[in-house]
Amino acid sequence: MAQPIEFYFDFSSPYSYFASVRLDDLAGHYGRVVRWRPILLGAAFKVSGMQPLLDIPLKNEYVRRDIARFARLLDLRFRLPEKFPFAAVAASRAFYWLDAQDSALAKRFAKAIFRQIYGAGADVSDVDFVCDLASGMGVARDELKAALGSAELKEKLRAEVDAAVAKGVFGAPYIVVDGEPFWGADRLAQIEEWLVTGGW
Amino acid sequence: MAQPIEFYFDFSSPYSYFASVRLDDLAGHYGRVVRWRPILLGAAFKVSGMQPLLDIPLKNEYVRRDIARFARLLDLRFRLPEKFPFAAVAASRAFYWLDAQDSALAKRFAKAIFRQIYGAGADVSDVDFVCDLASGMGVARDELKAALGSAELKEKLRAEVDAAVAKGVFGAPYIVVDGEPFWGADRLAQIEEWLVTGGW
Repeated sequence: MAQPIEFYFDFSSPYSYFASVRLDDLAGHYGRVVRWRPILLGAAFKVSGMQPLLDIPLKNEYVRRDIARFARLLDLRFRLPEKFPFAAVAASRAFYWLDAQDSALAKRFAKAIFRQIYGAGADVSDVDFVCDLASGMGVARDELKAALGSAELKEKLRAEVDAAVAKGVFGAPYIVVDGEPFWGADRLAQIEEWLVTGGW
Repeated sequence: MAQPIEFYFDFSSPYSYFASVRLDDLAGHYGRVVRWRPILLGAAFKVSGMQPLLDIPLKNEYVRRDIARFARLLDLRFRLPEKFPFAAVAASRAFYWLDAQDSALAKRFAKAIFRQIYGAGADVSDVDFVCDLASGMGVARDELKAALGSAELKEKLRAEVDAAVAKGVFGAPYIVVDGEPFWGADRLAQIEEWLVTGGW
């Protein structure tokens, strides 16, 4: 059986959101599953010297326009939260805690987080917001909240981020198909071509 | 009549090359013409603080792999010249000198320059190489060579680059369709969608 497609993303990346709404369906058409891996781009930026998109003069104006336009093309409600970019620590840790129990649930949770951020402008750096959202999906709120403060879960996220950077993940979305990396929400067409042809 | 599509590119940008081989045909399908504008990305980088792609840790490894893969997808011979990136001053100045006389000739010249760089690894920062190439296309070699050293042509390129940066051009290829900017060779599908629909 083919290995899963790896989907590295940061909740604080609108382009990650755009890729997330289509990637599972796209992979499914070719009998493939997607393994979601939230990361924190800040760690990659420390290695690369790159900066958050909206901090770059000239490019920031383009990006603001482009993300709104990209969202319209995908028929997605879209707004940037007031606090942006943000460190998606709580949501990412919660993802890995859920993922260890039920990867399908973790993926539904991640999709709900993305919709809350970019559909409703929610502040998901708020631990209680994250716990409430998970609770609404049937997760034991107190257990999750306790886990979010644990050294074990902090270490889990750190290890995932370090592993991603060691693999060369410098931006998001960063999607790996059979060892072949594709960066950017605008590369889904090339990913589909790769899945259809087995590579070129 | 619709205004031309503006195509800002740097000869020292492989992604500009990839866009260049398809953009005129794509525009032509919708009755549109493309106005080619070579620029020097270094001037934009001074404003944005961005760096050449191959100077960025982590990202550089991806880019090397991606440009080779992108070229294969487009069925293009491809190699990076030994001196890369390079300042495409001579080729860009020559373009504008030709463009003032015959824009179709200037475009053919630009396409030949791109093929020489990425198909054959040529060093187009060499003034004599540029003059020889133009001469082979019927251009008066001595006149071109004299123009390349003139203050007037230096100023022309500088003014074009400054105007591009003032418009927000921070990278290349940067393509403007009816005032709407699209950055990157991987955005031709969105550009086509824009041409078909008139925007979304």
